[in-house]
Amino acid sequence: MALADAKPMERNEAGIQTAISILKQRFSERLQTGKDIREQHGHTITYIPNQPPDAVIFVKTTHEVQEIVKICLEYEVPIIPFGVGTSLEGGLNAPAGGISIDLSQMNKVLEVNPEDLDCTVEAGVTREDLNTYLRDSGLFFPIDPGANATLGGMAATRASGTNAVRYGTMRENVISLTAVMPNGEIIKTASRAKKSAAGYDLTRLLVGSEGTLGIITEITLRLHGIPEQISSAVVTFPSVEAACNTTILAIQSGIPIARIELLDALYMKAVNDYSNLNYTQAPTLFTEFHGSKQYVSEQIASFSDIAQEFGGADFQWAEKQEDRNRLWKARHNAFYAGLNLRPGAKGIATDVCVPISKLADCVIETQQDIEENNLIAPILGHVGDGNFHAAVLIDMENPKEIEQVEAFIDRLHKRAIKMNGTCTGEHGIGQGKKNYLKLEHGAGCDIMRMIKQAIDPKNIFNPGKVIPDF
Amino acid sequence: MALADAKPMERNEAGIQTAISILKQRFSERLQTGKDIREQHGHTITYIPNQPPDAVIFVKTTHEVQEIVKICLEYEVPIIPFGVGTSLEGGLNAPAGGISIDLSQMNKVLEVNPEDLDCTVEAGVTREDLNTYLRDSGLFFPIDPGANATLGGMAATRASGTNAVRYGTMRENVISLTAVMPNGEIIKTASRAKKSAAGYDLTRLLVGSEGTLGIITEITLRLHGIPEQISSAVVTFPSVEAACNTTILAIQSGIPIARIELLDALYMKAVNDYSNLNYTQAPTLFTEFHGSKQYVSEQIASFSDIAQEFGGADFQWAEKQEDRNRLWKARHNAFYAGLNLRPGAKGIATDVCVPISKLADCVIETQQDIEENNLIAPILGHVGDGNFHAAVLIDMENPKEIEQVEAFIDRLHKRAIKMNGTCTGEHGIGQGKKNYLKLEHGAGCDIMRMIKQAIDPKNIFNPGKVIPDF
Repeated sequence: MALADAKPMERNEAGIQTAISILKQRFSERLQTGKDIREQHGHTITYIPNQPPDAVIFVKTTHEVQEIVKICLEYEVPIIPFGVGTSLEGGLNAPAGGISIDLSQMNKVLEVNPEDLDCTVEAGVTREDLNTYLRDSGLFFPIDPGANATLGGMAATRASGTNAVRYGTMRENVISLTAVMPNGEIIKTASRAKKSAAGYDLTRLLVGSEGTLGIITEITLRLHGIPEQISSAVVTFPSVEAACNTTILAIQSGIPIARIELLDALYMKAVNDYSNLNYTQAPTLFTEFHGSKQYVSEQIASFSDIAQEFGGADFQWAEKQEDRNRLWKARHNAFYAGLNLRPGAKGIATDVCVPISKLADCVIETQQDIEENNLIAPILGHVGDGNFHAAVLIDMENPKEIEQVEAFIDRLHKRAIKMNGTCTGEHGIGQGKKNYLKLEHGAGCDIMRMIKQAIDPKNIFNPGKVIPDF
Repeated sequence: MALADAKPMERNEAGIQTAISILKQRFSERLQTGKDIREQHGHTITYIPNQPPDAVIFVKTTHEVQEIVKICLEYEVPIIPFGVGTSLEGGLNAPAGGISIDLSQMNKVLEVNPEDLDCTVEAGVTREDLNTYLRDSGLFFPIDPGANATLGGMAATRASGTNAVRYGTMRENVISLTAVMPNGEIIKTASRAKKSAAGYDLTRLLVGSEGTLGIITEITLRLHGIPEQISSAVVTFPSVEAACNTTILAIQSGIPIARIELLDALYMKAVNDYSNLNYTQAPTLFTEFHGSKQYVSEQIASFSDIAQEFGGADFQWAEKQEDRNRLWKARHNAFYAGLNLRPGAKGIATDVCVPISKLADCVIETQQDIEENNLIAPILGHVGDGNFHAAVLIDMENPKEIEQVEAFIDRLHKRAIKMNGTCTGEHGIGQGKKNYLKLEHGAGCDIMRMIKQAIDPKNIFNPGKVIPDF
């Protein structure tokens, strides 16, 4: 199967021009049509070609989004919501042209309710901005996908990242959403109650819908208390299997690990070279433990026992923030360190996720596949969730190599799905994985198409994304 | 507004008779049309009139369900899925007649994956049967709605109960579902991976859809390790507010309480009378703590400090299972003890849920309302989630009293919704709360209707439930 389904779609040229001229009157300088700004908004930091929108509008309120939706609805013009542009799968491209709605100026924290451990933010607030805002409250928002993404974008793509093993993904941490729907109505998907059995779960329907069902403008999020104690440990293992088995047993034993990240030997070489470090070039776990002082000690003792049982060695511990930052530096720089293994190459961040009992098998088979095909693809995993990224370094000028990588990624996705896993743990479908949604969901794909068709019958909300053949 | 929207709907008499005669050929003695069995399957343990189906079929496989759906689709005959009949809101009634599909014989545990902390069961397995099955594995399934419901029914109604404060509801604990959809297709909503960003969240769409979008036949559930130590405590408080504030502070402090249940003074009188106990007749918290020995001690110490700060007294602790059972007896018998306050009366288990910061206000205002209207309605709450039940005891022969109770429940639902809460924390909408769905969800209700219309255009899956005016 092809690497991505990013083929241009039929353009409604007349509608687009009419809508832009009406919206220009309304939004004046906040509507931009310059090439650079349009290309930046069709941004894709990966391998998919740029398909810029026809105009970008910087919005400030939910009602402005509603105004735009109503005009685009009338003239049947595509709308693509934009946060800060960290999508990896072409989610922001405009294959049929249209309007990019930039929500980055909707960046207010609207309320924080410490007693209820929740807050409500506008969609353009980034996760780092939120945590800066919360700094003195004793609370934090744990989901960390790496990039400093907007919370709207994170909700739209069901993002997760390093802390998900303990705190869950956006699925578990979004309490309610305000969204503008393709019928032009503004909905609030739920109350602030911690649970509800009232009707269909519209919150979870929009989380992960990637802008194809509604444009998220406000989000009520679950917050967590900043732990009294945070401790980190880096441990080296004799094999990927040993590191995976340590992870499985630690989780089975009920240790509430906050982070547990695997870097394979090649990644450890890359980070050593890139950051001038001298870690052992072997499969390595980066871990973090949260809790009271006493409880963290207890977690560490249990984890150390398990790790040693599987041959874990070269333990390095850190408690103070600066020491933890130093320890985690290798992990945080991994993406760029990886690219450095092959200067000039593009990186394709694959994203499969399998039941953790299958993780070692899936990683080992994938490493063999990489080796047999002479690819360069270091592996990094959120192993507590069974999610890993083989970052394939590819020369995009070499058609033969592209073909070879396509075949590799095809095998990778099929391997994960066969192991009862998914082609995407956290990056989403976008244009990049549309070809695999049917393979993964079978007849469920038809139900998704029915929902899309019913809610967005004119197919103007982020068309060409997620749902195949639509 | 009326207590429930349970009005009979137009019957497709010819279709029903034809479908039954075809299905009788196929299912023989497993299709039953006797009055008793039909009435039992239109069972509602609350105040809503019984509306029995025309036939009941006892199914054994997903494919049998599919066969029935295909025939009912062809003749446009309603289908109502049935587990063990513990629905409180008329979810099992057949206002347009039709076929009740009894899934209680689909009672096999299909697989348990200890390494992945999950299992897959048929929809008719009850939660107690599952925990009996798991007994020797060191794992358990924590969701406990009180009744020994089937896991299919619990998924369909997004059930929760006493352990939800720590372990979440069915929303968080269902990993994947197999369901027969109204187009006659069998879907599997997700893989067994712990997380996925692949397409719309069909799992969460079906969880809580109450049989109106699909018939759940298999469920993959998240399991948890049986804690090394379980300790219980019962504490008396000077006021509802003090008990609520203790709960809020305990949760804010990060104590992972496994259960925290409030019984008001009237309920404490009821359980004392019913079970011959001598608890103080004051607002009381029943709590439970899970973890390692050391961690549970730490939790207990923190909780005791907080409870004492708010005037908590008469602490009773228990560690051994038999002692814990004795301690929790009062809580477990509360429903029947409550009914005993007014022999012959029916109990209406209301079910509002609000942000916990509003819980004390909501309970206190509700108690005042009860008093002002001379109602008898003891209150019990899953206070860690902000969810409480005022069990209104009502003489169903007295029209004036029914009117008065309707007005009380109307005020209760509006009070909760105004406090940014929900009219149902865990019982679902069924026929009982359809009138409040629009009030709670506004324009979101239209989106729910679009989804229902798209997925079940002939409205044969549990018609007359959840979605108003449909």
